[in-house]
Amino acid sequence: MGIDVWYEKSEYAIFSFMNRTYIKDLKASVGKEASISGWVDVRRDQGKMIFFEFRDVTGKVQGVVLPNNKEALEICKEVRPEWVLTMTGMVNKRPEKNIQKDKQNGDIELEVKKVEILSKAQELPFELSAEVNIDTYLDYLPFTLRTERAKKIFKVQETIIQSFREVLKEESFVEFQSPVLVGGDAEGGAAAFKVEYYYDQVAFLATSPQFYKQIMAGVYERSFCTAKVFRAEKHATTRHLSEVVQMDFEMAFIKDHRDVMAVLEKVTKHIVKNVVEKHSDAFEYFKIEAPLVPERFPVFSLREAQEILEKECSLKCIGEPDMEPEHERQICEWAKKKHGSDFVFITHFPTKKRAFYTYADPKNPEFSLSFDLLFRGMEINSGSQRMHDYDALVKKLRSRGLDPEKFAFYLQTFKYGMPPHGGCSTGLERITARMLNLANVKEAALFPRDMNRIDNLLSK
Amino acid sequence: MGIDVWYEKSEYAIFSFMNRTYIKDLKASVGKEASISGWVDVRRDQGKMIFFEFRDVTGKVQGVVLPNNKEALEICKEVRPEWVLTMTGMVNKRPEKNIQKDKQNGDIELEVKKVEILSKAQELPFELSAEVNIDTYLDYLPFTLRTERAKKIFKVQETIIQSFREVLKEESFVEFQSPVLVGGDAEGGAAAFKVEYYYDQVAFLATSPQFYKQIMAGVYERSFCTAKVFRAEKHATTRHLSEVVQMDFEMAFIKDHRDVMAVLEKVTKHIVKNVVEKHSDAFEYFKIEAPLVPERFPVFSLREAQEILEKECSLKCIGEPDMEPEHERQICEWAKKKHGSDFVFITHFPTKKRAFYTYADPKNPEFSLSFDLLFRGMEINSGSQRMHDYDALVKKLRSRGLDPEKFAFYLQTFKYGMPPHGGCSTGLERITARMLNLANVKEAALFPRDMNRIDNLLSK
Repeated sequence: MGIDVWYEKSEYAIFSFMNRTYIKDLKASVGKEASISGWVDVRRDQGKMIFFEFRDVTGKVQGVVLPNNKEALEICKEVRPEWVLTMTGMVNKRPEKNIQKDKQNGDIELEVKKVEILSKAQELPFELSAEVNIDTYLDYLPFTLRTERAKKIFKVQETIIQSFREVLKEESFVEFQSPVLVGGDAEGGAAAFKVEYYYDQVAFLATSPQFYKQIMAGVYERSFCTAKVFRAEKHATTRHLSEVVQMDFEMAFIKDHRDVMAVLEKVTKHIVKNVVEKHSDAFEYFKIEAPLVPERFPVFSLREAQEILEKECSLKCIGEPDMEPEHERQICEWAKKKHGSDFVFITHFPTKKRAFYTYADPKNPEFSLSFDLLFRGMEINSGSQRMHDYDALVKKLRSRGLDPEKFAFYLQTFKYGMPPHGGCSTGLERITARMLNLANVKEAALFPRDMNRIDNLLSK
Repeated sequence: MGIDVWYEKSEYAIFSFMNRTYIKDLKASVGKEASISGWVDVRRDQGKMIFFEFRDVTGKVQGVVLPNNKEALEICKEVRPEWVLTMTGMVNKRPEKNIQKDKQNGDIELEVKKVEILSKAQELPFELSAEVNIDTYLDYLPFTLRTERAKKIFKVQETIIQSFREVLKEESFVEFQSPVLVGGDAEGGAAAFKVEYYYDQVAFLATSPQFYKQIMAGVYERSFCTAKVFRAEKHATTRHLSEVVQMDFEMAFIKDHRDVMAVLEKVTKHIVKNVVEKHSDAFEYFKIEAPLVPERFPVFSLREAQEILEKECSLKCIGEPDMEPEHERQICEWAKKKHGSDFVFITHFPTKKRAFYTYADPKNPEFSLSFDLLFRGMEINSGSQRMHDYDALVKKLRSRGLDPEKFAFYLQTFKYGMPPHGGCSTGLERITARMLNLANVKEAALFPRDMNRIDNLLSK
């Protein structure tokens, strides 16, 4: 090869599939020949002729091999669903009576002239369109992720995470990479996975990027990350996963938690706007309305929410330290009716129920300058103003029975001057699941890990 | 609070720092009063008056407390570097003789009227501007990341990762979240960290998103991820880290590896272009030229490169199965002189030296359709066409002494129809380090993990 030879060759590889027409663009070739590459979605052998439904990343189209094309018929006798082919043929308008109006390419079909087999498939465990239970779905992910349903979910998820980054970038936040391997179970609360590190040392998997984003707020004032976090909690619910993505931001020079809430509201609105604009097909497919987003999200202190729940929903809960899942569902339903919002902020959780770094309300230190954001009945985000005074933090750690020495690295942030700051964290899988009303958060994680599953390793 | 009350309060928190002027914008306030918030960078107490250098995320400015301002002087007697303050005062033009021409705000200063202390700092371990060795730098990251040097490195890194996503998005690649917890040491080669999973099961930390991006290329045809990967290799070099970010993409319907190289070339050029456009300050700071990017990156097969190295650099290496670090450096230096390029592609590594899924060259199966991309003397990317035929893959696994059963999840991808495809992986830390000519890749990881360090946990 060598530079001179290689680049001057006309077969320069970027052009290799240059004759490929994407299925979504086929219509422009009516009356002409075109070549498509993709998977066999459905095959109907009618003896004299064979009908196909072909699929590529842009959509589907019907193909037909006519009786006079002996060579192609011979090849296609053998072809089965999920085989990968390049098909060349005439793009024809369908006769009026065969037009399927509401279907992509319902008015055209490809009259196949030439077939090239790129890859064969073995017999399928079930049809791709079959409805299967969640365990079967997860056992066969490399296959089942090719369904319309899964493809739509994870395109929406992509838009969510990209919109999160986009709007924060506009707001002068700096993205950073938060570490996964950490030296200790940082927050002293959540169950952390242990890792065998070098020299018989033990490391842990991060349960949160919390400390690092605070450090970074001391560096760039405004920082964000989309970080993998891990919880070794023994929960087998529809709300828990062992590995998730958290979308976190942290901002310095705030007055209190409400600055954070205001940015979060903006971020969340931007995410919803983008998802609604780009994925109307997904809302249609999942038969769900786009989220209701009012001018301002309703805000209630925990105490106020509890009063509403007692008065309006007959749920006894005033004085409880947190909200039960049922309370979250009910307050959301109420807020949707009353305020036309699928989002609700709950603030002022008891200080002792929140992480040690949470800022207590100076007016009433029993409660904290903290908040949760609920979305369609479930908490998707949690945040607060943080403590920024070194001495107060050390005192707080001690009062919780934690050893400040173990937090020495983190505490440098405050030892060497840290402004008032706060931040929050949105669960990517949770917001995805609520956006599309998925019953189980596992459906909103591409390769979910839980007590019983890492791919199919533990599922046998 | 409650929704009605809260939103109508004029103290709505987003406005709390609304009077804050960013230091970069101070010039527009000459002759007027302004309020800045930030850190004390330097303090010079001259007895009767005190000079400060203030720092916020946008830059630095000089402040002065004059003798007539007793109250502010009193407060500022106590103030030390890294204290966080809000300073309100007059923005004055400096007298001609005091103007520092090449310095940000060298022609103005803030005559401080009022000082508010937001946060105090303890005595610093060393001045922020001090040159320290790498271990000290790493022990004090929450402090040392506030240096100009570190801030520039990780802003460049942010631009690299965002540019990678941006250009691939334009090329119709779909972003996905690759898992960290995996069931086995996938590639059967690299050393993987063990994780204690539930029920005495063992899990591993991913050494690559390889299998998952191939699965996703079967779903969306073109996929990418920016994934954390982990290597438990016992290397203590300037090139190795235990936790890194890989920027990977994978694309289906390729003719061969050159399709991947063409996209990678485009991606890399886009990254360089953005970094050069946005971070001229960083190239200046690090006293390094912007990368040389020719119209097309030079390409040599391994054998051709070895011939060049023997002939032009007197390095005996023809027939060796891989390139030594010294070979990488030499071929890059040669290519820079000869082809005006800081990037070099090396292709056709011996098949047996690459991962099992690498596609052998049909014309000469001893060599593979693989490539490395070298940048300023170091490999920053590795890629290839992949095998896509199920039977061939199973056979290949067996020939390497690997048990196909253990790869059953991954192998579904090929069992159920997979087009010809390929992809590659760029190390974020490595490309950052080469971009700015950093001697040690640890400087290009925010919180580097290696044999001896997880923050300062193992460094004591």
